[in-house]
Parts: sequence; C-alpha cells; structure tokens
Amino acid sequence: MRVLIAQINPTIGDLPGNTGKILRSIEIAREQSAQLVLFPELALTGYPPEDFLLLPHFIHDVEQHLHTIVEASKDIAVIVGLPRQNPERTEKKLFNSAAIIHNQKILGFQDKILLPTYDVFDERRYFEPASSVRLWEIDGMNIGVTICEDIWQHSEMVKYTSYRRDPVQELSVLVPDFVVNLSASPYSLNKSGNRQEVCCKAAATLHCPLILCNQVGGNDSLIFDGYSFYAGKDGKIIDYAKGFEEDHLLVDLSKKSKPRSFQTDPIEDLYRALVLGLRDYFQKSGFTKACLGISGGIDSALVACIAVEALGVKNVLGITMPSRYSSPGSFTDAMQLIKTLGIDHKEISIEGPFKSYLELLEPQFSDKPWDATEENLQARIRGMILMAVSNKFGYIVLSTGNKSEIAMGYATLYGDMCGGLTVISDVTKGQVYALAKWINRNKEIIPTNTIVKPPSAELKPNQKDSDTLPDYDIIDNVLQSYVEDHCSPQEIVGRYGYSLELVEDLVRRIHRNEYKRRQSAPGLRISERAFSVGRRFPIVQRYVE
Amino acid sequence: MRVLIAQINPTIGDLPGNTGKILRSIEIAREQSAQLVLFPELALTGYPPEDFLLLPHFIHDVEQHLHTIVEASKDIAVIVGLPRQNPERTEKKLFNSAAIIHNQKILGFQDKILLPTYDVFDERRYFEPASSVRLWEIDGMNIGVTICEDIWQHSEMVKYTSYRRDPVQELSVLVPDFVVNLSASPYSLNKSGNRQEVCCKAAATLHCPLILCNQVGGNDSLIFDGYSFYAGKDGKIIDYAKGFEEDHLLVDLSKKSKPRSFQTDPIEDLYRALVLGLRDYFQKSGFTKACLGISGGIDSALVACIAVEALGVKNVLGITMPSRYSSPGSFTDAMQLIKTLGIDHKEISIEGPFKSYLELLEPQFSDKPWDATEENLQARIRGMILMAVSNKFGYIVLSTGNKSEIAMGYATLYGDMCGGLTVISDVTKGQVYALAKWINRNKEIIPTNTIVKPPSAELKPNQKDSDTLPDYDIIDNVLQSYVEDHCSPQEIVGRYGYSLELVEDLVRRIHRNEYKRRQSAPGLRISERAFSVGRRFPIVQRYVE
Repeated sequence: MRVLIAQINPTIGDLPGNTGKILRSIEIAREQSAQLVLFPELALTGYPPEDFLLLPHFIHDVEQHLHTIVEASKDIAVIVGLPRQNPERTEKKLFNSAAIIHNQKILGFQDKILLPTYDVFDERRYFEPASSVRLWEIDGMNIGVTICEDIWQHSEMVKYTSYRRDPVQELSVLVPDFVVNLSASPYSLNKSGNRQEVCCKAAATLHCPLILCNQVGGNDSLIFDGYSFYAGKDGKIIDYAKGFEEDHLLVDLSKKSKPRSFQTDPIEDLYRALVLGLRDYFQKSGFTKACLGISGGIDSALVACIAVEALGVKNVLGITMPSRYSSPGSFTDAMQLIKTLGIDHKEISIEGPFKSYLELLEPQFSDKPWDATEENLQARIRGMILMAVSNKFGYIVLSTGNKSEIAMGYATLYGDMCGGLTVISDVTKGQVYALAKWINRNKEIIPTNTIVKPPSAELKPNQKDSDTLPDYDIIDNVLQSYVEDHCSPQEIVGRYGYSLELVEDLVRRIHRNEYKRRQSAPGLRISERAFSVGRRFPIVQRYVE
Repeated sequence: MRVLIAQINPTIGDLPGNTGKILRSIEIAREQSAQLVLFPELALTGYPPEDFLLLPHFIHDVEQHLHTIVEASKDIAVIVGLPRQNPERTEKKLFNSAAIIHNQKILGFQDKILLPTYDVFDERRYFEPASSVRLWEIDGMNIGVTICEDIWQHSEMVKYTSYRRDPVQELSVLVPDFVVNLSASPYSLNKSGNRQEVCCKAAATLHCPLILCNQVGGNDSLIFDGYSFYAGKDGKIIDYAKGFEEDHLLVDLSKKSKPRSFQTDPIEDLYRALVLGLRDYFQKSGFTKACLGISGGIDSALVACIAVEALGVKNVLGITMPSRYSSPGSFTDAMQLIKTLGIDHKEISIEGPFKSYLELLEPQFSDKPWDATEENLQARIRGMILMAVSNKFGYIVLSTGNKSEIAMGYATLYGDMCGGLTVISDVTKGQVYALAKWINRNKEIIPTNTIVKPPSAELKPNQKDSDTLPDYDIIDNVLQSYVEDHCSPQEIVGRYGYSLELVEDLVRRIHRNEYKRRQSAPGLRISERAFSVGRRFPIVQRYVE
C-alpha cells in the first residue's frame, strides 16, 4: 500500500483555507498514486482551536467542510483530524476525532482515547475520551488509527499523567497490518527525538509499521516541528519528513526499506523553530513588517537575526534609541549589526522626553532619591517610541527579553516588554549565547563584542546585570530545576550546592514577577515549561514570599 | 447535632495562615458547643491553588498542616477541604478531597467525584475523580460528604457539561441523616440564587438537610461570595451566612426551624463583590495604597468609589492629567468627585511630554496625517505618569476600562490599560451606569454631570465614544449573546434585529482585540464569562476576520 503523509501547516479556524490545503494534498496523493493520504490531528481546524470548539456554529461549519473533503475523495482514502459532535449524552459534547474516508464515503470515526490535560493541553475541557478502538479496512489492509497522545502511554514517557488505558496494547491484540497516528505534537528542545522513541516502542509492540503525520507551523505560542515519519515493524525509523516546513512524504509499505537514522542539530532546530514561530505569527495574522529596538546587546541582536530570516531583510526596522547612559561601545555594536544585516534603521534619542518627564515629576518627587522609577522611565520612553512607529507605519514591535531576565522580572513593564511578540521569552540566557555562536558559525553576523561584553541595561552609569542578578548560569540552573523539574529549593541546593538563601531568593523573584509576565506579549514556547503558556500560577499567593 | 459552618477567606498557598484560620474556627465551634465544624473546598490551600498542586513539596507541606489540624480536633469533628495524594496509580496523582476528622483521628477522605473542567475551572488538570461515595458516622449520625460540583449535576444546571454520574442520586440510596457540601463556588451575577436552587433540589431528592460551606474572598480574578447556607429536608433554605465576608453560622439540626427567604439586591452584591475583589487583591499581596487617573468620566469615578470603600479614603490617590483636549467640564467633574470622596489629589499635565514626543517624532512622521498614534501617545503618557508615581511611592495603579470598551479594543495598550488590576474589566457599560446610580442612591457622590454627559476619551477635539463605536446598549447585547451565550452572528440578528453587518463587525472587533486583552492587567470576574479568565481564544486565527 502507498500512503502519503501530508504534513500541512493549518491556520487556527481557517476552515476554507485548511480545507484548500487538504484538497491540494489529496491531488498530490493522486499524482503519486497513493491509495491513502494522512493528515495531522485536528487538521481541519488547526491545533489548538481552543474555545472556538465551544461555539455550536463553529462545529456546524466544520461539518460543512468535512462534506467538501468527502466529495473530493473519489477513488482514494483520506484520514483527517477534526472535532466531531458526540452523538451520545456524555460529559463533553465533542470528540477529538479522525474521519476515515474512502471513495466519497465516511467509513467512520476513530476518536481519541487519551486526552492530554496538563502543560499547554486542555483537551478534557472540550473532549470526551473514546471508549473503543477498532481496525479499518481499506484496499484489503487492516489499519489501526490513533491520535497523538494515544501512542504515548505505552512508553510511559508522559509527565504528570499515567493513563489507565494503553491504546497500543489494545490495538496490538487486533493484529493490524499497520497503524497510523495523527499528531499535533508541539516542538520543545529535543522533543522530536523523544517522539520518535515513543513511536518506535509502539511499532515494536504492535509488530507492524507505524506512520505518524505531525502538524507543522506556529500557532500563537506553540510551534509544531513536523518531522513526520514512518517506522518499520522492527521499531526502526525508515524515513522522515522535513522539520519546520510543510512536506509530503510517500510511504510504500510493500517495499523493503533500510532504516534511516534521525539526525538533527538541536541548536539549529531551536533557531528554525523560532524563525517559524515568528513567521507564522505574522503571516497568519496578515502582518509583514517588524520593528525592534537595537541596543547593541545580545538579545536584540539575536531577535533581529531571527526576524530577518523569518520576514526578509526589507521587512525589519531596527531603531536605536540612545540616552545619556548609552556607552559608545553599544552604539558601535548596534550600528555594526544593522549594517551587517542590512536592515532599515532609525535613530531616535530618548533625551528630549526623558528631560521633559524629569522636569514634570520633579515637583512631585522632590526629595526622593533616584531609583528604579527613573530607570523604568527610560525603558518606557523607548517602548512608547516603538509603539508610535508601530501605530504610524503598521509594524509589529518585537520584544526582546529572554527567559532568564523575564523569570527575574529584570524587564520594565510597558517599557522593553512592549510588543506584539516576545520572540525569545522562553530562551534562557545560556541558549541565547549558544544561538548567537551558531549564527556566527561561518562569519561574524552578531558583533563579537556584543557576545563577549558583560550584559548591561544601560539605564544608569556603569550599570551591569550582575549588579543585581547572580550569574546567568545560576539563574538558568534554578529555572531548569524549579520551573521545568518542579524541584523544591532544598532539592536544588542538593543538585548544585548553591546556598539555600540564594535559591530561595531566586524562587521568590520568579513568583513575585508573575504579575509582570501576566501582562507580557505572547512568547514562543521552546521548552517543556514556558512561562504564561502551560504554567499557571496565581499572582497573589503566600506559599513563596 | 450542632454543626458550625466556618465560611473562611483563605489565601492561596498560605498554609500556616489558612491553618491558623481553621484552628480559630475550631475554637469558635467549641465555644458554641458544636460537634462538627465544616470548612470550604480546598480550604487549606485556598481555591484555586493552580500549578502549586504540581509541586511535590507543596503537597508534602499540605500533609504537615493537615497533621496540625488533626491534633487540634480533640473531642470535635472537622471536615476540611484539601488536596491529597492518590495512593493508586491512576491518570492524575491527586484527589480534590475532604478530610473527615474526629477526635484527633482521620476517619478517612471523601474525594470529589465531579471535576469541573470548563470556564475558569481546570480540575482535570490536577485531579482524579473519586470512584465511590459512602456515609461517615459521627456521634451516631450518618453523614454524606460532597464537594461543590458533586451536587450540581442533579439539577442539570451546569453548562457545557453533563456528567454521567449523579452523586446526589448515589447518596440518596444510602439514606444519610444529612449531607454536607464543601464549596469554592465563585461569584457571578445572580449565581448565589442559582447555587441555592441547585442545593434545594438536592436536599429534596435526598430527603435530608443539606449544609453548604462556601469559600469567601478574592483570589486573583475570582471572587467568592460566601452565602453558605442550610437547607431543610423539604428543600427550603432555613438559614444562610453573610455574603462577601467571613462568617460562622451555627446549624442545630435537632431544632425545628422555619424557612428564611434568601433576598439580596443584585446591584448591591455586584458592588460588594468588586470591593471584596479589590481589597483582597491588595491585602493578600501586602499592598495598601492605590492610585488612578481621574478623568471626570464615569469609569474612573466608579473605580475611585470602589477603591475608597475597599482600601479607605487615606489610601487612594486621584491624579488628574489634563491635556489640550480636556474639556473644562471634565476638570470640574473630576475635582468635584475628588472633593466629595475626600481622596488625595495630584494634578500633572501631560502637555510637556506630549510636545516633546511630537517634536521628537515629527522628522520621522513628517507628512503622515494625525491618527490614532497621537491619541495613543497621550494615553501612554498618562500611563507612564501613573507608573512613575506607583514606582516612586509604592501605589498599585488601578486601570479603569470597562468590559464593553475592552471588548471593542477601545483602550490604549500601555496607556489607560496600565495597572496592577483592572477593577471593572468584566462590568459592561450598562452595569457601570447601574452601579453609579446605586452609589448615588442617597446622595450625589458621583457628579450627576459625569453620569449624564456622553462618554468621551478626550484625545482629540470634540471626540465622543459614539464617533467610532455603536451605542453601548448594542455592544452590551452582542457581548451577552456572543461571549456569554455563544450565539452565532445570525442568531444575534434574530434576537435583536440588528443588521448582520453590524453584528459581524462587532464580533470581528472582539476577536481582533484579543491581543490587547492578553496583555491587560488582571480583572475581577463578575460575569459567567469574563475575558482572559475562563475564555480562551487564540490571538492569531482566521475563523472571524
């Protein structure tokens, strides 16, 4: 049997557009003489459709578009993910389902059994789990259909959750000829390797080939990496689709094939993920142009590189906004980056408004000493300038804070936190350096001085990040242990040998700055636990204080 | 039997503080010769504890504090809500549970059966549903224990969800002497009446008294109204606790009691909800002082009244920030309000910074016409001034946008949207007027002119809200139908007779402004569907465009 994996990039709620992509893939399948074409989980709506699922008219529209797909399936089989109404009276009204379509008829629906409700996933909010699994006969082959999480329990690699059912075991009893999996499995560092390990284990238990079709593309904070693949019955990868772009991969199950080893560079993948996330955030909302403040520091340099790659050099505007505290080195570094990238540039000094605010507030503040207020004023004037340029010319402002800073609240709300997207909000400072070095692997794009100099916000004379923050290595280790691994402060002390006082101070800062992060622009999720998406903590609390 | 309902106001994660409240209530129970004292759902952690539940050390600490409560229960019975570890290997590691404690022993745990996972509730993210329900014998009485949602299915009044189990029916078979319900049931308009209807139906089916203990207090966006009560076996309310404050209500089940009718004023309750939500947001995070911009308009006037009631007149600072477009009427109205309330006042003109920005940007903007950019500049200068005063003196800024404006995006991001709390973000413009009239019921506190004049942002000459927005009545009706009732645009046309074009334009504006709301300060939820809490829509989507 010849199966085409259609690794498409749907837009949330774009039912006509997504249906168009599905119909084009069916055409490609015909051209390649495939008998079956396979789409990702919820391909028709895009994943995740969130509360659109609660609108009855949305579900009605999904049904209309399914009809169009069925019509287009003459002499071919299609398995496509979509939400469907639950005909029984159960807790939730919908199933997360796969329509199995053959020659203009719906053979039936295989609904998802395991519904992830943790991290960024809220599937129990919308869906009822399927009660049963069966095989589907197409052209004499008995096919098992699973949806994403359904094959994960078998490997016991799901955190926080241990499902009582294992659909892989349930299917293996039925002795399928092959099994397909419709996925919308978001990218995080090293996730693609884990996903393949999970699937290879499933294939080995099933004693049959497993074909996984994953969604690709960015939807708000989530990035889907693609990397759909085909594993043989011995549990080895035979072929895989491209990462971070749409792709069609033909699988011929009748051919004997050699295994192909899955190799990717984690830092290159991280870079491509950020580029895809930024590009889709713009393209899918109809914007083309970005502007950002270029400080001469490493964060804005990295974001500028990602933006140029994602949007094209003509669509990126770098704005330098010097103040009395800007160092000559920063100016040189900023200009060198702008020149190397070849992006448009505006220079707008913040001195005029800064003086004007200081004069205005002097009678109010009188004898109060200079403090963070005046530092925030500078950051906020820069934010206002960026927003004014955005409003006047239609740019989206890119915010450039990294995860380590944002964790500590080392950022000004309504200042450098202004923007439509915080591109590297889930990238730690250590990863920022790794990406910068990777970008410079062949030639110096980010100025070496930007990489080697000590980080500074330059909001007062001779300021350094290290004046008020511990080393970024320490912050990054605490972030990994506390935010991702849920360690207690005592456990973190045991892991790294830091003092309990230091660890507790950092954990306290993480919680105290929840209020800032709640008002931040959306960020691109690239870790297993990003702030604001998939991590839900109260602002007002007294467990950590 | 004598049962004390301990309607307490816990703080999220404050395990020592909440335990202290629990111990004090046990003392009060002893003083009143109660045999049993009843606490709300998750009373020990506060509701909702969100992802603290995922931290193993948090659950460990809960167990330590439970031990303290058990120690304190000599010669008395205590039923208290808390999370507990699930000893079995199931999908989730925790139960949402009630510890049944008598005379320093834990008799056992009754776990919650029905786990709400819709709107603001995410209980399936953390908890496994209980498999069984039983009776608990205390002092010769057989008591059924339920937790919040457990009694709601019976009335079929839960939206989006129809559970397969009905714990009320399951309990009725066991013939309890009485049933208790531990609740953390958040306020929304008219919710307290619904809650009582639900419970009275349950009592009537159970043929026994039902005693409900509800949480009271504000936790981030959620406000819990209290109004705990006691229903007789005929399904009639016999007594109820206070709304919007801590209370202890003694129930003597051996006494014959007459029904007491439950009467509240919906607008007074709405006002008290907002006051409580604002007060707890400050108190629980250790802040005492608020500042806000006073424009002379109705929204800031209402928020000032709520702040004065919640924090005390000495803790509220009103800042007037006139510009070239401020009308003399606005100035008079603002000053009259400030005088009537007796709050502190600063006047800080925005003209200096505004001129400075215009000069700075003139070479960049050159021939581009005046547009929303210059309006936003003014709103953002005001935001910056408020934030500077906040930073320098430790005030929390109150943002004053109402739900109707915020739905339409009629607000400036990083401008009037600045703040720590958006007090009336879930209050429609219609409700703003109703509240203002209620505040003025005995004497003129909010100036009559503020109430009767047409709303204006005063960001350009002779501007009125109605220049770019339809009547607020229309907006409010569309909000109710689309956001709360999930009607399609066609259904809204059928409901009100508006043109499809108008309705589609308003629905489009709601979705287009999701990006602004995502960056707004948290708001207080008072409707069945508030923006940002319990309503989850993507920013980038093409279903509505």
